[in-house]
Amino acid sequence: MRTLTVELDDRSYPIYIGQNLLGRIDLLEDHIDSRQVMIVTNDTVAPLYLNRVLRSLDDRDVQSVVLPDGESFKTFESAMMVYGELLKHRFSRGAHLIALGGGVIGDLTGFVAATYQRGVPFIQIPTTLLSQVDSSVGGKTAVNHPRGKNMIGAFYQPKCVIADTDTFDTLNSRELSAGLAEVIKYGLIRDPEFFIWIEEHIEDLLARDPSVLAYAVSRSCHNKAEVVAADERESGERATLNLGHTFGHAIETAMGYGQVLHGEAVSIGMCQAADLSFRLGWLSEADVSRIVHLLKRANLPVEPPKNLTVDDYLEHMAVDKKNIEGQLRFILLESIGRATLPTSVELSVLVRTLELYSGQL
Amino acid sequence: MRTLTVELDDRSYPIYIGQNLLGRIDLLEDHIDSRQVMIVTNDTVAPLYLNRVLRSLDDRDVQSVVLPDGESFKTFESAMMVYGELLKHRFSRGAHLIALGGGVIGDLTGFVAATYQRGVPFIQIPTTLLSQVDSSVGGKTAVNHPRGKNMIGAFYQPKCVIADTDTFDTLNSRELSAGLAEVIKYGLIRDPEFFIWIEEHIEDLLARDPSVLAYAVSRSCHNKAEVVAADERESGERATLNLGHTFGHAIETAMGYGQVLHGEAVSIGMCQAADLSFRLGWLSEADVSRIVHLLKRANLPVEPPKNLTVDDYLEHMAVDKKNIEGQLRFILLESIGRATLPTSVELSVLVRTLELYSGQL
Repeated sequence: MRTLTVELDDRSYPIYIGQNLLGRIDLLEDHIDSRQVMIVTNDTVAPLYLNRVLRSLDDRDVQSVVLPDGESFKTFESAMMVYGELLKHRFSRGAHLIALGGGVIGDLTGFVAATYQRGVPFIQIPTTLLSQVDSSVGGKTAVNHPRGKNMIGAFYQPKCVIADTDTFDTLNSRELSAGLAEVIKYGLIRDPEFFIWIEEHIEDLLARDPSVLAYAVSRSCHNKAEVVAADERESGERATLNLGHTFGHAIETAMGYGQVLHGEAVSIGMCQAADLSFRLGWLSEADVSRIVHLLKRANLPVEPPKNLTVDDYLEHMAVDKKNIEGQLRFILLESIGRATLPTSVELSVLVRTLELYSGQL
Repeated sequence: MRTLTVELDDRSYPIYIGQNLLGRIDLLEDHIDSRQVMIVTNDTVAPLYLNRVLRSLDDRDVQSVVLPDGESFKTFESAMMVYGELLKHRFSRGAHLIALGGGVIGDLTGFVAATYQRGVPFIQIPTTLLSQVDSSVGGKTAVNHPRGKNMIGAFYQPKCVIADTDTFDTLNSRELSAGLAEVIKYGLIRDPEFFIWIEEHIEDLLARDPSVLAYAVSRSCHNKAEVVAADERESGERATLNLGHTFGHAIETAMGYGQVLHGEAVSIGMCQAADLSFRLGWLSEADVSRIVHLLKRANLPVEPPKNLTVDDYLEHMAVDKKNIEGQLRFILLESIGRATLPTSVELSVLVRTLELYSGQL
């Protein structure tokens, strides 16, 4: 087991990464000092892992809520169901929540923890590659609003993150690839050597080699932890983690949540960000091709659904929360391994990229 | 104008107290550095004060949401309406919210500010005595859940509080008295001289003498600011501000939100807390009478609705968020001017107090 730390003064916390961690009673014991524990999970993950976590919490008052699986359930209605269960069981301010699942469960449970009785402790147990390398670390919690993804949320850090890499055994290939999009992102924005390492190990990653996957998770979390420690509330560097996300969120919102996986939308969005960076003279055509090629090798989509128009993008990007006062600003790449802070882009240049990606050119 | 400060390091903020502050453009100018401003208010306050605030923000992109008046609208559905307006107008992370109204508007707007895009700045403009002396100061934000008051919320501090005492002119007598309940509370929990001052000035307060009211607001806010600065997240002293609130919330929940004003429920709850303190041997009968007498002189109810049973109380108190792990704990009085931290009480003793207050004795 590797242990990393997210350094945030009195809110610092460990990330445990390794095999068979769900069976490690001591990890939960170390971070739960309440009798009342509520596990939030979904109907895909519950049959696989819920009992194993329950066994580690034997002597406590443990309740669980099993939500339907999917991004379309990352709503305030789902949060209300969890609040309702907490209140029904008379769970107090000291109660602990556990998020057992992927990014949707982690974001939603974190939001409930941030807001139930103005904040109760919670633990992240991410069970997908994407959530282990990205959403479970750093304290961004949220639910979606019909008008925009993650529009209702809070910054709220967990007590610890338990990333059991054995859970990848039950991921389907599409979800594994979606997770690799965020892994590749760390290489692109701040770790050029890691990008090269991924290029060299992409087949091993897709073949689910345990030690190669564990290294990818660990190095991704290391990058994420450094960024979060430097800029918890995204006033600077943390914004670079959103490479591809402004495009990606627009695709997710336009398509309806759940039609395209978050990692898939980010993959397409990173291609668009690369194209935009090329148009501004920063990336070479060869760089863009290299990025697109690696994403393709990871079995990720590199082109959006053809029915998205330029207007669809513009409509959904203008309310994206990364945009300051309605300006169109993007995280772009100065090179492979180096991202810019949010950068204003001329509408005419943006439209060229969008046209390329909407089948209008 | 008096200016107090809530000392919270980089989240410190001023409270401005005085007459004709709604017309002071400079106060808003000093605290808003965005073009996008959303005013949240209700249909009682809007006709009285909305235009005056709008005039102070002339050159900006100002939108407003007018909610129905009343505690029954302090819900997540109302919050969703505000999120929807913010998104419809493409308000970004830099947008500022203004809460213009009483405690319901302040708590709800604060919650939306805490959670819209994971947090945007907001300003409190409380227009009732109760919200000026209590809820607008200290960063407690919340909406109600059908199973319990303020169960969904966050600690989130405003950029400033603008308490215009001219707004009391439009309060009805019942609301003025409800506010006095919280004023009296400060005397009871930590400021015995203030308690005596209130006894001496209760007629002037009810007669709305401007300078007497301004002093009451200022001294109340001073007390509140000290408590919040010492214990922002209610791990200790801040809990004493909840004197009477465990009983009061049970009354409010059992009756249905809005049937009894918050200050009225707190008045009854303080009588019950005083009775319980007497049963534990701390207050004399004379002290209890003195407290009840002052609340009566303030035209506040000192007995709950007769249809509340002991079981009603117990059901609604057990989910009160001040209770740790299901134990019944109360803020009690060691003397007039000195409150205890949350104190466990034997059920049998509690039941005696509840019986006295449910017409069963």
